[in-house]
Amino acid sequence: MATPETKRKKKTTKKAPLSKVKVAMLGGLGEIGKNLCVIEYEDDIVVVDCGLGFPDDDMFGIDLVIPDTTYLEENADRVRGVFLTHGHEDHIGAIPYLLKNVDLPIYGTPLTIGIIENKLIEHHLEFSPRLYAVNAGDVIEAGALSVEFIHVNHSIADSCALAIKTPHGYIVHSGDFKLDLTPIEGEVMDIGRLSEIGKEGVLLLMCESTNAERPGYTESEKKVGKSFDSIFLRYRKKRIVIATFSSNVHRVQQIIDNSVAFGRKVALTGRSMLNIITVANRLGYMKIPEGTLIDISEINSLRPQEVTVITTGSQGEPMSALYRMAYNEHAHLSLGNDDLVLLSSNAIPGNEKLVDNIINEMMRRGVEVFRDPALGVHASGHACAQELMLMHSLTKPKFFMPIHGEYKHLAAHRDLARSMGMPANNIFVGEVGQVLELDSKKAAWTGVVPSGILLVDGYGVGDVGNIVLRDRRHLAEDGIIIVTAAISLDAGLLLNGPEIVSRGFVYMRENEELIEKLREIAYTAIEKALDRNIYEWGQIKKMVSDAMSRYIYQVTHRRPMILPIILDA
Amino acid sequence: MATPETKRKKKTTKKAPLSKVKVAMLGGLGEIGKNLCVIEYEDDIVVVDCGLGFPDDDMFGIDLVIPDTTYLEENADRVRGVFLTHGHEDHIGAIPYLLKNVDLPIYGTPLTIGIIENKLIEHHLEFSPRLYAVNAGDVIEAGALSVEFIHVNHSIADSCALAIKTPHGYIVHSGDFKLDLTPIEGEVMDIGRLSEIGKEGVLLLMCESTNAERPGYTESEKKVGKSFDSIFLRYRKKRIVIATFSSNVHRVQQIIDNSVAFGRKVALTGRSMLNIITVANRLGYMKIPEGTLIDISEINSLRPQEVTVITTGSQGEPMSALYRMAYNEHAHLSLGNDDLVLLSSNAIPGNEKLVDNIINEMMRRGVEVFRDPALGVHASGHACAQELMLMHSLTKPKFFMPIHGEYKHLAAHRDLARSMGMPANNIFVGEVGQVLELDSKKAAWTGVVPSGILLVDGYGVGDVGNIVLRDRRHLAEDGIIIVTAAISLDAGLLLNGPEIVSRGFVYMRENEELIEKLREIAYTAIEKALDRNIYEWGQIKKMVSDAMSRYIYQVTHRRPMILPIILDA
Repeated sequence: MATPETKRKKKTTKKAPLSKVKVAMLGGLGEIGKNLCVIEYEDDIVVVDCGLGFPDDDMFGIDLVIPDTTYLEENADRVRGVFLTHGHEDHIGAIPYLLKNVDLPIYGTPLTIGIIENKLIEHHLEFSPRLYAVNAGDVIEAGALSVEFIHVNHSIADSCALAIKTPHGYIVHSGDFKLDLTPIEGEVMDIGRLSEIGKEGVLLLMCESTNAERPGYTESEKKVGKSFDSIFLRYRKKRIVIATFSSNVHRVQQIIDNSVAFGRKVALTGRSMLNIITVANRLGYMKIPEGTLIDISEINSLRPQEVTVITTGSQGEPMSALYRMAYNEHAHLSLGNDDLVLLSSNAIPGNEKLVDNIINEMMRRGVEVFRDPALGVHASGHACAQELMLMHSLTKPKFFMPIHGEYKHLAAHRDLARSMGMPANNIFVGEVGQVLELDSKKAAWTGVVPSGILLVDGYGVGDVGNIVLRDRRHLAEDGIIIVTAAISLDAGLLLNGPEIVSRGFVYMRENEELIEKLREIAYTAIEKALDRNIYEWGQIKKMVSDAMSRYIYQVTHRRPMILPIILDA
Repeated sequence: MATPETKRKKKTTKKAPLSKVKVAMLGGLGEIGKNLCVIEYEDDIVVVDCGLGFPDDDMFGIDLVIPDTTYLEENADRVRGVFLTHGHEDHIGAIPYLLKNVDLPIYGTPLTIGIIENKLIEHHLEFSPRLYAVNAGDVIEAGALSVEFIHVNHSIADSCALAIKTPHGYIVHSGDFKLDLTPIEGEVMDIGRLSEIGKEGVLLLMCESTNAERPGYTESEKKVGKSFDSIFLRYRKKRIVIATFSSNVHRVQQIIDNSVAFGRKVALTGRSMLNIITVANRLGYMKIPEGTLIDISEINSLRPQEVTVITTGSQGEPMSALYRMAYNEHAHLSLGNDDLVLLSSNAIPGNEKLVDNIINEMMRRGVEVFRDPALGVHASGHACAQELMLMHSLTKPKFFMPIHGEYKHLAAHRDLARSMGMPANNIFVGEVGQVLELDSKKAAWTGVVPSGILLVDGYGVGDVGNIVLRDRRHLAEDGIIIVTAAISLDAGLLLNGPEIVSRGFVYMRENEELIEKLREIAYTAIEKALDRNIYEWGQIKKMVSDAMSRYIYQVTHRRPMILPIILDA
């Protein structure tokens, strides 16, 4: 592969280009997750990341949320590639769903590609996907555009920012990053290359905003290792169970290093932990001495002080390995007085209660539980304010679009840019689907591309929409009452029923009087309809459900769904 | 009323009593909320607090959770009174439900009683409740027991700890408290009296544990006023909207004081805010200069800098006043660039996402939003570790039961007591319903009293139980499919149907093929049953739902509720 230098020269042109560059986010603006960025110049489209999101609390039954990629499918012939910054779910998780609809080439560093290969095994594609492993420093041609991978630090190994070269200058997409001056493996973020690109001319910086509200710098991952070290020293007699994000390969490496130093074997538990560490180990991202890893089924033959367990479930996720341990449902591990459990993570907003629940359960069993961030057992993977400002200072962009964050994060990032002297008119805080058009002089929102979300429920993608969700919320709130009757329209006679069945409303056996009363109300409503010679199904049903609703609300102050079913007998 | 001194002397006895004191919590152990403590000596029962709890996330449709008070109802003739520590919902909220079942005398300070009177208006009791307003320092006779109210600081005015005198010594129940050395109104916590009681002899300390995990001391409420002061000074041009807990009378007083100092009128919004401040004002707990309060409907005739709005909704509660403002649905208030919104509260665990959502919405509208605890716009009402240790040091209890907290809080409080030298055997970390029996020598868990929870849904108390909730969760997750058919058993014939109706599963109009397939499966199952001369309703239904379930799971990986309804035609 040619060196970046060669590539850059080749594309240099003297005449000012006429067309504008277009940029849109199909996810990751005003929200955490489902990151997807589209960069377009004339006939060429570059896609950055294709991640999934997690459902809101009121999206009952939904497993995942993915971005609507109609725009990419309709313009597939122009898409030169999907370029992945790193292997986290919110950046790569929607790739299998995208590939089911359209065969696009995927580029990423080896760990990222390794994780995707693993994921694709579960999804059955009808073709061999075009997955290309590249390295930091590589530049990929993409028509009139090119994409350069630049090494950054983050909470997963092999993370990159991307510099997309356009005829109007570079677009720098930060991916997710932090500046770690003492990284566990590999280099510090490639400040030099970012600075060079800044000097060559950055048209637009698209920079992540997750920690924009937090002042200062993020702690180094190495500091977490030091905290582990003192904890391992102090708790030599206990079995140590550490819950962390499975993708944090460096965190897991440090736990293994500490375990080896203290003569402990290490068992992994949790599906994603096993999956990712296996991939990372195979690809050479980890150094695990022979004989260190044992199967989780072997731990009970060892004394507590001889074992470290690394597990998923640090967010308290129901049915995760840690959750099963907390509720004593894990096949191989029963927690008690001999155990120290470390939550090496922060609770993601919305998960606090889940995490508290498992902590309470474990403490009830006499387990010692550590999770205080003050103990230094976790470090964020995302740049805080000073690091974000460093990114601005290195890349010196003309225009700026804060990305990857809820509105408050984007706004905080905007304020940081303002504080560095960037004119308000050069900053673009946008919404998903909005198109920013730019050339070296001007940038403006000019329109929208198709965007939206698709809900994944089981095997179904997009077959659960607003109406189904509204019904689920209604059913969850007050349950359902079904009224069945058989009517002969010819004879104008109620032949059978009405029968009342309810679920999720009240326990029927304990409320026979109420159910009987509802039956009477339904009966009266049907008789009234037939007396008036009303033979229109819809109208009869409405009379029944109105009469029942009124009565139910009056006596219970509830509004269950009422579903009349009439058979034409 | 006699002085405490007289009372104490009267009860002194020289012979050691034979009976033991029994203590049980019917709520508030291993959980936040529904605090209810029962203290019993021979024929006399003293109840401390009777609060409500909020439903867990998976208790769909439930409005409130209240403690099962069967034990109090069955022993009503022995209950000498319900003694309330303060007027927060988690301490008094279940009183109306208790009084509906049994007429017990209620004692509390004037603000507490005022708030209850207000609540009881909505609940229609068939008798005049016996509500008695008492003051800190008062001692109420309760058979062989007596109850003394002792002033403490907390985030609502007029809060008390209780010293229950028993033949074996005092039981001190802390209520909820903090030590505020610069309280807004009234005195510092009555350290002197607690110390005296400690010298007389405390058998058991029952002490709240909410902030037991937090080191140091809680900030004074006065510090919050100072933060408001500098914010009012700096944002003179903006309308200031402050969201806080309606019951925090002193917080509201400070906001009013600041508003008056800066020449602003004050409008209150939110039902509970109006209710509680009206009561507090009427009872003389507030000093509001004439002409300061305006109706919320008047604010638009004033310039932004002339108005402060005090609102409910600091937890992001859907349909609260602040929520309606954030989503531009408030009848009188539309937020924008001219507004500064202060969240004078901490997000209660579980509410973080709700709070984040409204902050994002407000910021989208250009509102400046402050909520950083570092700005000092909130102070907790609960004692941190050092204050808890002060309580132990003042009361010098022989036995100790940490109360009011999840297990982790109780455990942290236990560890504090241990660190002060209390023997592990003298500390009792219990569960709801467990009975602790004690005399001056010994304490031990000896049994249980009836306890549990009742779910309140609309007007219904206890009519939604586990089966209904399980159905609601099932319905929420995957929806319902109803299969209706009319069968003549006499003729062994399917006369009509099967009809398929679904809600919350898939959108039927877009999935006609699947619905048709399900109809065929149901048809085949019924025909098969009739062919085999199976005429048992239950068995036919089971054959239908099994066949459908299998197919649905295979093609969708979902498990909707399947409800066959067969009419005998």
